[in-house]
Amino acid sequence: MTRLVRYLPVLDWGRSYTGAQMSSDLIAALVVTIMLIPQSLAYALLAGLPPEAGIYASVAPILLYAVFGTSRVLAVGPVAVVSLMTAVAVGQVAEQGTMGYALAALSLAMLSGALLVAMGLLKLGFLANFLSHPVIAGFITASGVLIAASQLKHILGVPAQGHTLLEIAASLAGLIPDTNLLALVIGGGATAFLFWVRRGLKPLLRRIGLPAALSDVAVKAGPVAAVVATTWLVQAYELNARGVAIVGEIPQSLPPLTLPSFSPELLQALFVPALLISVIGFVESISVAQTLAARKRQRIDPDQELIGLGAANLGAAFSGGFPVTGGFARSVVNYDAGAETPAAGAFTAIGLGAAALYLTPLVHFLPKATLAATIITAVLSLVDFSILKRTWVYSKADFTAVAVTIAMTLALGVEAGVSAGVLMSLLLHLYKTSRPHVAEVGRVPGTEHFRNINRHKVETSPGLLSLRIDESLYFVNARFLETLVLDRLARDKDLRNVVLMCSAVNEIDYSALENLEAINLRLKEQGIGLHLSEVKGPVMDRLQKTHFLDDLNGRVYLSQFQAWKDLAAAG
Amino acid sequence: MTRLVRYLPVLDWGRSYTGAQMSSDLIAALVVTIMLIPQSLAYALLAGLPPEAGIYASVAPILLYAVFGTSRVLAVGPVAVVSLMTAVAVGQVAEQGTMGYALAALSLAMLSGALLVAMGLLKLGFLANFLSHPVIAGFITASGVLIAASQLKHILGVPAQGHTLLEIAASLAGLIPDTNLLALVIGGGATAFLFWVRRGLKPLLRRIGLPAALSDVAVKAGPVAAVVATTWLVQAYELNARGVAIVGEIPQSLPPLTLPSFSPELLQALFVPALLISVIGFVESISVAQTLAARKRQRIDPDQELIGLGAANLGAAFSGGFPVTGGFARSVVNYDAGAETPAAGAFTAIGLGAAALYLTPLVHFLPKATLAATIITAVLSLVDFSILKRTWVYSKADFTAVAVTIAMTLALGVEAGVSAGVLMSLLLHLYKTSRPHVAEVGRVPGTEHFRNINRHKVETSPGLLSLRIDESLYFVNARFLETLVLDRLARDKDLRNVVLMCSAVNEIDYSALENLEAINLRLKEQGIGLHLSEVKGPVMDRLQKTHFLDDLNGRVYLSQFQAWKDLAAAG
Repeated sequence: MTRLVRYLPVLDWGRSYTGAQMSSDLIAALVVTIMLIPQSLAYALLAGLPPEAGIYASVAPILLYAVFGTSRVLAVGPVAVVSLMTAVAVGQVAEQGTMGYALAALSLAMLSGALLVAMGLLKLGFLANFLSHPVIAGFITASGVLIAASQLKHILGVPAQGHTLLEIAASLAGLIPDTNLLALVIGGGATAFLFWVRRGLKPLLRRIGLPAALSDVAVKAGPVAAVVATTWLVQAYELNARGVAIVGEIPQSLPPLTLPSFSPELLQALFVPALLISVIGFVESISVAQTLAARKRQRIDPDQELIGLGAANLGAAFSGGFPVTGGFARSVVNYDAGAETPAAGAFTAIGLGAAALYLTPLVHFLPKATLAATIITAVLSLVDFSILKRTWVYSKADFTAVAVTIAMTLALGVEAGVSAGVLMSLLLHLYKTSRPHVAEVGRVPGTEHFRNINRHKVETSPGLLSLRIDESLYFVNARFLETLVLDRLARDKDLRNVVLMCSAVNEIDYSALENLEAINLRLKEQGIGLHLSEVKGPVMDRLQKTHFLDDLNGRVYLSQFQAWKDLAAAG
Repeated sequence: MTRLVRYLPVLDWGRSYTGAQMSSDLIAALVVTIMLIPQSLAYALLAGLPPEAGIYASVAPILLYAVFGTSRVLAVGPVAVVSLMTAVAVGQVAEQGTMGYALAALSLAMLSGALLVAMGLLKLGFLANFLSHPVIAGFITASGVLIAASQLKHILGVPAQGHTLLEIAASLAGLIPDTNLLALVIGGGATAFLFWVRRGLKPLLRRIGLPAALSDVAVKAGPVAAVVATTWLVQAYELNARGVAIVGEIPQSLPPLTLPSFSPELLQALFVPALLISVIGFVESISVAQTLAARKRQRIDPDQELIGLGAANLGAAFSGGFPVTGGFARSVVNYDAGAETPAAGAFTAIGLGAAALYLTPLVHFLPKATLAATIITAVLSLVDFSILKRTWVYSKADFTAVAVTIAMTLALGVEAGVSAGVLMSLLLHLYKTSRPHVAEVGRVPGTEHFRNINRHKVETSPGLLSLRIDESLYFVNARFLETLVLDRLARDKDLRNVVLMCSAVNEIDYSALENLEAINLRLKEQGIGLHLSEVKGPVMDRLQKTHFLDDLNGRVYLSQFQAWKDLAAAG
């Protein structure tokens, strides 16, 4: 039973569900549903799919996540970055607007879902940690810029293309003469309106005396207002006949049962993109889930989250959707609106199902320029180049990783960008550990504490050299220590004892062991003792399996202070 | 001037060269020259090149290394593993026996030389550290097996092919019916003789009363004896007319001036192999150089070594050679024979030049089977599978890296093998640091020393949790600590203060800083203090650039003991 609850969190919260929780969940669901209708249509557009795919991708995934996920308020569905990555990945194997394109999007969701579930069952949630925070921040910022740029074509009403900033700019530049002025007025107007709603409306409403909660609702209704106004405009003046692109006919139906393509060549071509989408989606989702859970002292299980998101993507694959994940904006809205349990998500799914059945004719005349405006305002709020400045101040290595991520994402696209960011941050880490900090230490007077002789006023003893090695010893830096000790030896002729203080040595691998043996041999030849102090339990366990301790020309001391008492006196 | 000496070590030892050093160097050069003649021919055969290429590759490279290298006794020239890698790399772009093949080998040497010089000037010598000792040991062992297998065709006198163990075995199996029995008798006999010389001759000579030094010379003369005997046999009985493959016509000339191909496609195709050859060659060479230098308390400069080896390879490229590096066997012979300075290498080069001019007609009838026998006995002495057992006992991670290296080298060839080994050892290291060891510590009674409560009898204080984090905090494990502290918090309701003992934290990167901020915030909300102790200088410098220390809900203590005094009393 406990085991079943671990894999089906719904059994945990479902059994104690109360009427009070239900009314909170219903209100939250209503707010989220209203917000999601235009957003779902917009992200389908971004992914290069027919608008209804966005709504379908919000129904089954939410329901499945409610059963398998561990976050109580995470709202799963299409999100900006994953939709862009879907457009890039599927665009490589099929032509937009074809049946093959929609089919490939289903296969991508299926692959991504299968990968997530597999990673969850194999407890590989830690893989997400290979994306450092600065790399994520840089990637989100650069993706936001790319997404906004990619939507300009809808605002201008031209068929531009491209997946990198340069491609998009070149394509747009060539098409500017073809700009549809009506689309530009609608799209530009909607964008300006939505920015004003975000920045200026709330303070205004508060000034004229509206309560905070009501002002919030008004702000959230902004996109809906833009949709209603521009749809009416197009319908009333038949602007679609004058070249304004509209959403058009949407089938009135619940999400259909669909079957992704299982073509081996297709699945192979989509494998790497699916992996990247899974990892990026997981990282985005778990960050949101953990932030919101922490506010209510709830816990998120990363491995179970993988299974929850995997189930959601498999759901999307078999119900006409495309890759989904937990979205930041919608989850925060869900939380702020008072959602208590995943049932809020289930109610949202019902709301969206109803919308798919009854409301789709109303958005027939909705201009694509308006959807583009909602995307642009949403993603530009994610753009934050300040990460460059913050990392520059703190650490040049972190700064380099961010800068590379942003530059590569803009110049070569999302997949190259995130891969370069991960690789760069790992290489920089390895480089840093290859040249570890080593401090010569002395005793802080009157204590048993030992610190760097260059930073603190400490006591030293002639003939005794105490080195604190500030890194695990492993193959990348194994030779470094040998070089350092021997160089030091060549300079100090009166040396009688060397103590390696191992308080910061968390591992000694086989390569480092061989180098330690070489150091020991060399010191022994010259009649100099080699001692270790503060060796940790796990490291000591290893050393005891070898001959190293038997051959050591000295002792292993529990603490540096004991080594000092013993050796400084002898010296 | 100092700067010039750094790049031209010859200026250092050359100015104080004495007559006594010169006579030592001359004797060593004679011994090495005699050893190198058959060896150079054999390694040219292994690389798939005409035999004279082996001699040419030993002349200019030795001279150039004598000028630019920092080791006093390293002997540079063709070596087994690099020759095999040359055969694999060049075999991918040209047919053996064609002009294009020899030309590509020159280009490979040029590329490799240019890469080494560039790495030296950019001070990238540390890159060699990315090859762990067990990976190198596994690679050398597997390469030895591959090389020995590849030479069986000469022993059997059949035209077998292949670069992996399976390919070679399959190719040989199909050709066994074509075995030339005379070649088998000569090759098999020579192999047995050479093994006996290595294992049985020296003890025998010592037993009959020969001095140790003379016994050594006799053993080293073994290959020469095999060469002389089998050459005479073939010539006297005209065995070459009965199908025994011989070395044949070798031009009598000093190394010619040659020009490598600069074809961009060729250089591009050879780039990755050249890089691998450079790194492997450098690692092999520097290991030998450091081992021998240490015996005489001399120092090796890795970055200058790169330049020395690079110059040697450039020399090979323009004088009819192929990629070279510092060889283990020949360097040890050079050292044991009493070489004092790189002038010994220069004398060896003169000796080999003379051999190329006057002695090549003598080896016309030398059977290839004898050369194969010298290669097989040489490389099988490098094969040592005990590294598998030794790493298994010490560390499963190191064992895995070795096992993968050996398996991949045998199954997919040298390039795949060494790449897989490097990748596997890096990934295992990252995996280990992603789940760091964290110990709850208490005070060792009567001292100011703090150790793991599970391993030592220590004092703890209620309400105070002291955690020693045994790893640098960086993005791969940043979330780990947050999860751990919060889980711990959920279990212990009486907690008032948490101390993170940072003696083993050598870095806190930007991601980890954000997680520390999150931990601090969470503890603050619950009225629990968060303190740090024993934070190192470089880490503290970083933290002081941020708001973290201002926001910290607690203090930073110089030592864990001070934290204990302060907080255990308060608790």
